[in-house]
Amino acid sequence: MERYDIIIIGTGPAGISATITAKIRNKNFLLIGSKNLSTKMSRAHQIQNYPGLPGISGQDFCQQLSDHLRQMEIPITEKKVIAVYAMGDYFNVQAETEILEADSVILATGVSFAKQLEGEAEYLGRGVSYCATCDAALYRGKDIIVIGYSTEAEKEANFLAEIVGSVTYFPLYKEVSDLSPSIRIEKDIPKQVFGTLKAGGVRSAEKEYPADGIFILRDTISGEQLVPGLQMENGHAVVNLQMETNLPGLFACGDIAGKPYQYIKAAGQGNVAALSAVSYLDAKMRQ
Amino acid sequence: MERYDIIIIGTGPAGISATITAKIRNKNFLLIGSKNLSTKMSRAHQIQNYPGLPGISGQDFCQQLSDHLRQMEIPITEKKVIAVYAMGDYFNVQAETEILEADSVILATGVSFAKQLEGEAEYLGRGVSYCATCDAALYRGKDIIVIGYSTEAEKEANFLAEIVGSVTYFPLYKEVSDLSPSIRIEKDIPKQVFGTLKAGGVRSAEKEYPADGIFILRDTISGEQLVPGLQMENGHAVVNLQMETNLPGLFACGDIAGKPYQYIKAAGQGNVAALSAVSYLDAKMRQ
Repeated sequence: MERYDIIIIGTGPAGISATITAKIRNKNFLLIGSKNLSTKMSRAHQIQNYPGLPGISGQDFCQQLSDHLRQMEIPITEKKVIAVYAMGDYFNVQAETEILEADSVILATGVSFAKQLEGEAEYLGRGVSYCATCDAALYRGKDIIVIGYSTEAEKEANFLAEIVGSVTYFPLYKEVSDLSPSIRIEKDIPKQVFGTLKAGGVRSAEKEYPADGIFILRDTISGEQLVPGLQMENGHAVVNLQMETNLPGLFACGDIAGKPYQYIKAAGQGNVAALSAVSYLDAKMRQ
Repeated sequence: MERYDIIIIGTGPAGISATITAKIRNKNFLLIGSKNLSTKMSRAHQIQNYPGLPGISGQDFCQQLSDHLRQMEIPITEKKVIAVYAMGDYFNVQAETEILEADSVILATGVSFAKQLEGEAEYLGRGVSYCATCDAALYRGKDIIVIGYSTEAEKEANFLAEIVGSVTYFPLYKEVSDLSPSIRIEKDIPKQVFGTLKAGGVRSAEKEYPADGIFILRDTISGEQLVPGLQMENGHAVVNLQMETNLPGLFACGDIAGKPYQYIKAAGQGNVAALSAVSYLDAKMRQ
């Protein structure tokens, strides 16, 4: 299997900045994220404090970053990262059904504000899944629930609807835009995953919805869910000024590395994370 | 005397970024630096890794930053900062002959690679000066030496030549560009300041040059010279992720806050420093 020098996860300003610097430093890298760049970012009305781009709109800023990547011939790999495992002196990155190997990893996945459902962690892997591509086949012919935190989740729900028996969809955002007609929409708010040995459904303030499987699809998975063993504090990865985490070879930058949540801070930290990864790789090679 | 909320020292990407964010947060600030922005910066051939501005030249980058400041109506005050004194709950900033007051200070002065001369620290204030504007009057009719580290020093040498008896100029850079004809140029390299109670001149490897006063004019004064009591390590101000130094209310960002020396890292840290200063001011107001 190919082993990458650096896998960068996230296509906000932090991940993009890290990748640009990794490319300049001639590393064998993979940038995993969304070609639409960060959906949050393109929604920003106007960005006033990114020095050099006065008063730029969120949309134009995304365009500038895309152009920068294109000019440097940096592709984005569209995959959902499920987990990052520190294996000692390398990392296994589970991207949907594929396992990728890398000497170092840069986390630039942003920060998740969504609270976990009661019972979610308990039933994860036992009826609760974060990844349609990974686990759809387990529910062939079964009745499943999808909890979608943004329109991004609709694509995955549509994919699930092709495979499973039935999909009930709980949109936790304003407007459903492109859901397959075979999917039933529930405007209720799930609070809890219930079950016995396996998850048996979700419960709202008023009602129970039984199901064989529950897909919870957020834009961002929290750091400790993504990387077992990653030290977190108040929802952020603990980092030092070099953007090192507690796991050697794993770096974090941008919103996941703490406040303030600002584009220029994220871009600066991405650069530092990439240069720290380069130093880490150099030191490893000399061993 | 007017007391500023924040005085920002330095007009590289860190200082400019800090100022833009201070302006957005409606603070009463003063940006002190050079209207030519950083001379180092404009010399960069091409900047590849400032996300959003692919392959921009150093000159164009300076122009973009200048435009950003102009669009936000942020003026640059051209003064040389001699010292910053922590007075307890405010700061005195000595800008040439003027003393300014501020509740908080952001240091974005870059990093000085120049080694001190032997004896320089010993005779500082006793025949050795860093500031022509401040101390020229002390040497009326006297013979002085100017050690210039860049063309920026020539203006100050010319000013000194109008006031003092004679100026001998040691250019520690390639080409002298605009020195008054009354100034004598020496192509030697001073290694040491000698003297008894007061400095008596400089010594090179081969020769002694006696003088009544010695002006040492570098682009950047080191952090500990600028701010008595500032904790430094390996030539950098010690900061945490919030860009706080060991002195409450004093923040550092950009090259002075440590490696890597990168524009995008500096701009990111400037933003963080400004938001930390805003938090500091808020907390102070609530006391």
